Amino acid sequence: MLTVNAIAATSATDPLVRTTIERRDLGPRDVLIEIRYAGICHSDIHTVRGEWGEIAYPQTVGHEIVGRVTAIGPDVTRHAVDDRVGVGCMVNSCRECDNCRAGQEQYCLNGNVGTYTSVDRDGTVTQGGYSTHIVVDEDFVVRVPQSIPYEKAAPLLCAGITTYSPLAHWKAGPGRKVAVVGLGGLGHMAVKLAAAMGAEVTVLSQTLSKKDDGLTFGAAHYYATADPATFELLRNTFDLIINTVSAPIDMAAYLGLLRLDGTLVSVGAPPQPLPVPVFALFANRRTFAGSSIGGIAETQEMLDFCAERGIAPDVEVITADQVNEAYERVLTSDVRYRFVIDIETLR
Amino acid sequence: MLTVNAIAATSATDPLVRTTIERRDLGPRDVLIEIRYAGICHSDIHTVRGEWGEIAYPQTVGHEIVGRVTAIGPDVTRHAVDDRVGVGCMVNSCRECDNCRAGQEQYCLNGNVGTYTSVDRDGTVTQGGYSTHIVVDEDFVVRVPQSIPYEKAAPLLCAGITTYSPLAHWKAGPGRKVAVVGLGGLGHMAVKLAAAMGAEVTVLSQTLSKKDDGLTFGAAHYYATADPATFELLRNTFDLIINTVSAPIDMAAYLGLLRLDGTLVSVGAPPQPLPVPVFALFANRRTFAGSSIGGIAETQEMLDFCAERGIAPDVEVITADQVNEAYERVLTSDVRYRFVIDIETLR
Repeated sequence: MLTVNAIAATSATDPLVRTTIERRDLGPRDVLIEIRYAGICHSDIHTVRGEWGEIAYPQTVGHEIVGRVTAIGPDVTRHAVDDRVGVGCMVNSCRECDNCRAGQEQYCLNGNVGTYTSVDRDGTVTQGGYSTHIVVDEDFVVRVPQSIPYEKAAPLLCAGITTYSPLAHWKAGPGRKVAVVGLGGLGHMAVKLAAAMGAEVTVLSQTLSKKDDGLTFGAAHYYATADPATFELLRNTFDLIINTVSAPIDMAAYLGLLRLDGTLVSVGAPPQPLPVPVFALFANRRTFAGSSIGGIAETQEMLDFCAERGIAPDVEVITADQVNEAYERVLTSDVRYRFVIDIETLR
Repeated sequence: MLTVNAIAATSATDPLVRTTIERRDLGPRDVLIEIRYAGICHSDIHTVRGEWGEIAYPQTVGHEIVGRVTAIGPDVTRHAVDDRVGVGCMVNSCRECDNCRAGQEQYCLNGNVGTYTSVDRDGTVTQGGYSTHIVVDEDFVVRVPQSIPYEKAAPLLCAGITTYSPLAHWKAGPGRKVAVVGLGGLGHMAVKLAAAMGAEVTVLSQTLSKKDDGLTFGAAHYYATADPATFELLRNTFDLIINTVSAPIDMAAYLGLLRLDGTLVSVGAPPQPLPVPVFALFANRRTFAGSSIGGIAETQEMLDFCAERGIAPDVEVITADQVNEAYERVLTSDVRYRFVIDIETLR
């Protein structure tokens, strides 16, 4: 067992604190990673505050993890010491179900092992990336291309793959009109990725306050959803809408923006069911879908795509002591566009 | 103008009565059809009773229409006198929008002209098929293959195409598991069509009362949805679910039956929005879709497919005087599986 520095929540209401956690001894196929940066995802906040269900405390979160391999188990073949690597939202899966065998471990029918708050194969509760080291099965570790700086690579492991996967699956590309709802951590990656894929991208944000950023990220158009005229003007327009907003949206209004065979994909979910007027789906044979992160092979594909196209998130690097403040700023959308913890400040 | 016998609703609450209605003079591209049979669709009942919005009375409904061409306008090229033909849920569309040009007139962005209760090109309200004759633009008239008896062809114009279209679009076929929710007029066609396409078909009906019929129609499996065990047993099973039930369903339960990339398509719609738990869409990257009838070319394709494969609905032929009684029986699901009015009894 390795005792390592970490940041942990001790209750649903108290601030996160510095502490230590245990990492398991290296198994034959395990990789020990010295973490360099960990991104802050809104899911981290929902989780530690118990908003997605009760959890056991103390709990370390963080599932946008990058760093350097410092040791490998004897049977490891995919990674070597000193490799630049990343870990996202899951650290294992059953590997036997239809979905795992299809390379879609994120949809493991037996439930994948989340990077935090899941029960690991040794019976312990998994602890996330706000810590100096992590031990992960090599199959759930991806390579971070040299050209992507560590701090910018971190958010790709959740915000990047969560938007890349539906964009790729629903074929964002030349000739396709893609709307991105919400310009936060996920939304800004969706815009950059969809534009790089060749789609004509429109941002739908509550106000025009981030319009300049949106256009810089590659959007061709930018509309305020607070203005009802937006929904009239853009009726029957989009092939694909990526909804990154977790709050409930007016489904009739947003579905109305889809053209023939268009799809609205939610990657963020409100806790309550969304009322869907079925007549809005009849028109244009529209579909409403969900998408959850991406598979391991697809995550590697996304990282390689980002390296090749020079795509990276806009990040604000913070110290370990600024995490609580950062949480508050995430809640007021005061971040452009992802906080990343410099784990050197935790050593 | 041609004055013809018909059955009409005179209010939302009174029984339908025999009356006469006017049909327009034949335009250059119009076809006059001597109607032989008209199917009774649940939509007819919703419409005349004002359940889908207020309508003007008197109103003749019916959008499952078959008969014989008795006259054609001078510019008609697609049909000839004595042809066996059919008319479904629409009698015109704008022909200029993207969807019309894509052969998807049912999704006309300017609103197609419904076979009844729509405003026709001459400003009158369209009147449906419970009548002895109808005048329709030739482009919205399809050929009924010789091998399909008239009375069995009628329901194909709505129940047939409404189920064929999503089955074809979402690729029901060999190796695909398709569930059909509800074994009524639409459901029994969905089973026959999906089985003919080569899919492995499961019926999900409230009880097992129609099980023998379902298996005869081509289903491989039949489960009662009143039994909660059904939803456990069939979890993560289907590639496609065709929901023919208009009443609200438990979306979490039904979505849970879809496997990776599975789609639940509703072809019937409750008037109230359906609460959709987004987390149920995340798992298996599920989609929830709507589908509305089919295009004209696709309707012809469906009729030809039915002729080739020997597929036809199970019908109960009634006289013009039995329509009100039939409506009551439709409302209690006491029909196997479609009422068809013998229009000879209306002359």
